[in-house]
Amino acid sequence: MSMKAVVYKGPFTVAVESVPKPAIQHPNDVIIKVTTTAICGSDLHMYEGRIGAEEGIVFGHENMGIVEEVGPGVALLKKGDRIVLPFNVACGHCKNCERSLTAFCLTVNPGFAGGAYGYVSMGPYAGGQAQYLRVPWADFNALLLPPGKKWEEDFILLADIFPTGWHGVTLSGFRPGESVAVWGAGPVGLMAAYSAILRGASSVYVVDRVPERLEKARQLGCVPVDFTVSDPVDQIIQKNGGMVDRAVDAVGYQAVAADGKKEQANAVLSALIQVVRPTGGLGIPGLYVPADPGAADEATKNGNLTLPFGKLFEKGLSLGTGQANVKSYNRELRNLILRDLIVSGKAKPSFVVSKSVEIDDAPDAYEKFDKRVEGYTKVLIHPNGW
Amino acid sequence: MSMKAVVYKGPFTVAVESVPKPAIQHPNDVIIKVTTTAICGSDLHMYEGRIGAEEGIVFGHENMGIVEEVGPGVALLKKGDRIVLPFNVACGHCKNCERSLTAFCLTVNPGFAGGAYGYVSMGPYAGGQAQYLRVPWADFNALLLPPGKKWEEDFILLADIFPTGWHGVTLSGFRPGESVAVWGAGPVGLMAAYSAILRGASSVYVVDRVPERLEKARQLGCVPVDFTVSDPVDQIIQKNGGMVDRAVDAVGYQAVAADGKKEQANAVLSALIQVVRPTGGLGIPGLYVPADPGAADEATKNGNLTLPFGKLFEKGLSLGTGQANVKSYNRELRNLILRDLIVSGKAKPSFVVSKSVEIDDAPDAYEKFDKRVEGYTKVLIHPNGW
Amino acid sequence: MSMKAVVYKGPFTVAVESVPKPAIQHPNDVIIKVTTTAICGSDLHMYEGRIGAEEGIVFGHENMGIVEEVGPGVALLKKGDRIVLPFNVACGHCKNCERSLTAFCLTVNPGFAGGAYGYVSMGPYAGGQAQYLRVPWADFNALLLPPGKKWEEDFILLADIFPTGWHGVTLSGFRPGESVAVWGAGPVGLMAAYSAILRGASSVYVVDRVPERLEKARQLGCVPVDFTVSDPVDQIIQKNGGMVDRAVDAVGYQAVAADGKKEQANAVLSALIQVVRPTGGLGIPGLYVPADPGAADEATKNGNLTLPFGKLFEKGLSLGTGQANVKSYNRELRNLILRDLIVSGKAKPSFVVSKSVEIDDAPDAYEKFDKRVEGYTKVLIHPNGW
Amino acid sequence: MSMKAVVYKGPFTVAVESVPKPAIQHPNDVIIKVTTTAICGSDLHMYEGRIGAEEGIVFGHENMGIVEEVGPGVALLKKGDRIVLPFNVACGHCKNCERSLTAFCLTVNPGFAGGAYGYVSMGPYAGGQAQYLRVPWADFNALLLPPGKKWEEDFILLADIFPTGWHGVTLSGFRPGESVAVWGAGPVGLMAAYSAILRGASSVYVVDRVPERLEKARQLGCVPVDFTVSDPVDQIIQKNGGMVDRAVDAVGYQAVAADGKKEQANAVLSALIQVVRPTGGLGIPGLYVPADPGAADEATKNGNLTLPFGKLFEKGLSLGTGQANVKSYNRELRNLILRDLIVSGKAKPSFVVSKSVEIDDAPDAYEKFDKRVEGYTKVLIHPNGW
Repeated sequence: MSMKAVVYKGPFTVAVESVPKPAIQHPNDVIIKVTTTAICGSDLHMYEGRIGAEEGIVFGHENMGIVEEVGPGVALLKKGDRIVLPFNVACGHCKNCERSLTAFCLTVNPGFAGGAYGYVSMGPYAGGQAQYLRVPWADFNALLLPPGKKWEEDFILLADIFPTGWHGVTLSGFRPGESVAVWGAGPVGLMAAYSAILRGASSVYVVDRVPERLEKARQLGCVPVDFTVSDPVDQIIQKNGGMVDRAVDAVGYQAVAADGKKEQANAVLSALIQVVRPTGGLGIPGLYVPADPGAADEATKNGNLTLPFGKLFEKGLSLGTGQANVKSYNRELRNLILRDLIVSGKAKPSFVVSKSVEIDDAPDAYEKFDKRVEGYTKVLIHPNGW
Repeated sequence: MSMKAVVYKGPFTVAVESVPKPAIQHPNDVIIKVTTTAICGSDLHMYEGRIGAEEGIVFGHENMGIVEEVGPGVALLKKGDRIVLPFNVACGHCKNCERSLTAFCLTVNPGFAGGAYGYVSMGPYAGGQAQYLRVPWADFNALLLPPGKKWEEDFILLADIFPTGWHGVTLSGFRPGESVAVWGAGPVGLMAAYSAILRGASSVYVVDRVPERLEKARQLGCVPVDFTVSDPVDQIIQKNGGMVDRAVDAVGYQAVAADGKKEQANAVLSALIQVVRPTGGLGIPGLYVPADPGAADEATKNGNLTLPFGKLFEKGLSLGTGQANVKSYNRELRNLILRDLIVSGKAKPSFVVSKSVEIDDAPDAYEKFDKRVEGYTKVLIHPNGW
Repeated sequence: MSMKAVVYKGPFTVAVESVPKPAIQHPNDVIIKVTTTAICGSDLHMYEGRIGAEEGIVFGHENMGIVEEVGPGVALLKKGDRIVLPFNVACGHCKNCERSLTAFCLTVNPGFAGGAYGYVSMGPYAGGQAQYLRVPWADFNALLLPPGKKWEEDFILLADIFPTGWHGVTLSGFRPGESVAVWGAGPVGLMAAYSAILRGASSVYVVDRVPERLEKARQLGCVPVDFTVSDPVDQIIQKNGGMVDRAVDAVGYQAVAADGKKEQANAVLSALIQVVRPTGGLGIPGLYVPADPGAADEATKNGNLTLPFGKLFEKGLSLGTGQANVKSYNRELRNLILRDLIVSGKAKPSFVVSKSVEIDDAPDAYEKFDKRVEGYTKVLIHPNGW
Repeated sequence: MSMKAVVYKGPFTVAVESVPKPAIQHPNDVIIKVTTTAICGSDLHMYEGRIGAEEGIVFGHENMGIVEEVGPGVALLKKGDRIVLPFNVACGHCKNCERSLTAFCLTVNPGFAGGAYGYVSMGPYAGGQAQYLRVPWADFNALLLPPGKKWEEDFILLADIFPTGWHGVTLSGFRPGESVAVWGAGPVGLMAAYSAILRGASSVYVVDRVPERLEKARQLGCVPVDFTVSDPVDQIIQKNGGMVDRAVDAVGYQAVAADGKKEQANAVLSALIQVVRPTGGLGIPGLYVPADPGAADEATKNGNLTLPFGKLFEKGLSLGTGQANVKSYNRELRNLILRDLIVSGKAKPSFVVSKSVEIDDAPDAYEKFDKRVEGYTKVLIHPNGW
């Protein structure tokens, strides 16, 4: 049995190819028929050839679909269930999983803390940009959704970016009533800003330079800050009447310098240290990597950043980092989506989705997303049609 | 120097009388000219003669105004500052105050934990339903507001009911994304519901029987539940598809039985224990008292309630109680009001205010509020005009 | 294949009988050869015929042993591993398990939150007072121990009473440096007192009447309080120079009145409300039940208790209840035992163990334990010899 | 009126001189007669001329004594009271103080968050290495001690190093049962290790090179790690059977490289990032400064450090920094000292004190402490004799 899948062929090239359909390998597996899968900004790290993905890998770590086949060890799922999967693959019973730290599972990817679908170095798990997907430890990993086809564009965001944005706010130590600054208005940054609004921030500033993105932030009730106009730290402190309580880095290691052109990996972190009030906190869901062969300088190649640590200490700041433990958040975020869509329309994260395509159009979508073509901020793929 | 004040004359009687204007008694005092003060549901406990208030007491623990005179020990306030005061009087340096537990100050009311303005047994502090008010430990107790007269009806709610509703949600152990049921849609219940909405509740149920109040809950985005129609626990479990995560008791010891008529002090608590899911939590800002001479039965007179404690244990519930530590919340709630009013209009707690009167009309307002006349849900007094 | 097991025959009677040896029923099961199992105070509730256990049930929810057989879905365990099991049976992937609330698993005991081995109404799981035991969801439920036979008497306490005592302290909201009062110096109470000491309590008071138990508390560094001498609340307040910060109820619904004779289910809770300072907390791991047919009065039969709730509210107390989520604690408690036994000898919970017997002597041990015969405070059974 | 005081005269020189005795300047002041004051490692930063202290400053931020004179605004203190003072000077009513963030008071040192006695740039507060000391906002800053002269050497440690070590453990996110590594076995490092032991760490590793200090760590029940023998990260991972849960940096910016000789400001932080398990935490009470003119390289002079941030992110670590909010801890630490000294002798932090001198011997003590002469690890001064 074969199926279509988005396969990595080399830098800047993916192809839709026929590959073997996955089968149950372990009693706790299920196979799903993928209804929706999304392209993530972190897929571009592989697509651009920057982090050494091997040719032939099937991409796709933001996945949802319908259960097609169920292993004999599975207790809670049955054929026909509609589920969404955290991008993290996790076992459910190691030291970290039992504390909901599912992004750091010690079982799924031996020698490393954490696994994912369709991602280099994250374990032997094929991605979901394909018609079918094998889900290991399915009882633990699956989040059950209401049957049908409703709200598909909202629910797919539970796989990664909504929990990741929410996680960023949590990492910052945020409490309701506080002010927050978010660097980066890509999908994760917008989800962080949206999360802060949902959780009762008194004000949210969002820093970017793309007008379309800043406009989305404005529509959320945030204050947009264009960093190409002037120093965003100054802009925020002036608008806020002082430093903010919390800040979120939704940019990561490909930060650019103030000129908006050349990469400067410590640019965002340095700004965050300036913009947060003494005793405040920084949430850092934006990716930093221990090795970045494509970096501009030697230190950054080795994952080293130069930071104003003396200032950070003087201000008594705290910071939290790391990939989102999606399972720590996705059940309650599903409920937020579900109830509010029905009752008040408040939590509709799909405002961030800009495009949906069939699987055959995935290579084209990758290319446009990589080139930041307008309208390709967040792309969904429906591998089995829609 | 004399001034007008609302003076308690005996059960069901208050009068506006001329009393001496307060003076600085201690270096850390300030005197304010009261711009707004509110009548609180708990004032009725005294008004109705139920808790033994002595004749002559000046009522009023929800107070704001303009600083008129400043003691020599005061560092941060100056004449002309606009401030709002927590209903709690607190010293700022005892074991409880230094942990922000200002409702349980060990200094201001010797032999007891906690003090308040204008309230029986809560210390020697005159109330603010008067033209002027003495504020002890003013640097600690005052919350500075923007100058001018704007948003007066929102800011006055920082003295008690907005923080008290917020506190109820906090006591329940609420986390964003969870579902909440609030018993009671009086001012505190509505503020609790509103707080839950602001903090990201996935759904909020509000139980009452007064149509006007239920309608306000509905307008907030809550699900109104009329307990005279059928068992509210059943209604909520059915609407919610199961028990809720958290519940807030904004009713207290004057709860009424299912028939809506006779008092049954344990009615709300018993319902909360039924409606909350195993491992959930109960927040209890509604007042319970150690002695209630007017109660229906002997046990309740002595502050004893019969509760389904076995069920509470079996479900592994937790509960938190007590008056709100207003200072734990009022600074961030002020910011929520301030920023959102300007930016997005989200946090406008004054939706709960139904009437504003001059001080000479206070006796009439007390009478109507006590009789639950429509339009008298939450009454403000402007003792120096407006 | 058959094996020996402790079988309930009716009120005050257990027998060692031959029953079928358990087999793998599900891919995620393992079978262990039991090395040690303990008799728990809560076994006596069944033994005394008080809570309707059906004849034929095999007792035993505190179990450890050696893995004998492994289901095909199990990933982390192998034949020969030494493991200890939480008394809670839990699935690892329901809403509660994924938050470590394993005492309230929604899967293992349909229609109820929580399951256990060998206990009435807690699901279809045979107890471990037998030579072999089937362990469902074994990857999740098993805690791996160092191989060999060392520290068996310490490790068996990880199944229930050490985590349960620790849980009681956690439920109280305890922070290091605070003072704690523990009601009850049975195994759980002593473990709670010991946990408070390990976690940095500034002082710990332990209330009981049995000299042997009070002496053990004293040896831990606690202050023993004999409640038959005078009101224990008065004793503690006097010794402590005021009320304590936290209190733990390790007695539960079979509390006795001040005279030390007749049952009075609310006696301990009422005392706790008196002894804790305003804003303090109560941890209640002691069992309360929704129905107690053997109770003295009608209310208690229905799980209703009369409590000084007005006083509790006035003091702003919080309380937490429920059975221990053993998996929330057992990994770190194992490490505490393991490291400290080697390095400093500090954490040796086996001080509480008073007797070890072969399985054939279990009926005699039950009888003596039930009669509170000296030396039978905590009895271990080695069903396969030692 | 004049008194003796330790006055800074220039790099490597202090003198005991006669200076004016302080007087009440504000209604909330008290004057104390200093019974004990300590020399702190951070005094050496000024003593060595490294951070630009102006000539004439009176040193001393670890102070205790007897109340001599009381301002008219003071409510809780009276002449004769024995008190100990946090090294932080704090107002008690600003945004940070009301949250117990007293190291970041916004009032006492305008333009900066935080003040201290006798320290450059920390406000106009004379130090306590003198016979008398003025204490501002005395009700808030003073911690009352039992009268008499007992336990003076324990109580003086409440001014700084015991809370600072405790704070380091708190900043790391430590939970009881976890393993901890502490870098630095000076007074603060030993207090951090001691705090971890008191709070239930399963194992504590302490890294240093001074045998006397490592021996003190061993006596506490910690595992000493001599970093001159081999890479301390490797030593700890090997002894611990894997990375530790938490680590504390009690060294700060004057860290030395692996060779134990030249300064390398990022050496300790880099080691901490290596030694902590994924999802663990770092507590950083060790001082880092925004400007260090005496540093070896340009980046460090400006407070910039190069850190393996990619590794930190990959592991999902969190970190907390900043000076200790002494008032957040000192009341409960006092109780720990007080109760345990009487009952069980457990909390006796004075094990760290190595020398007591009269004020006239202070210059000699400074010189020897600065040269790390054996026996001068922690020096107390009794300015009015003992």
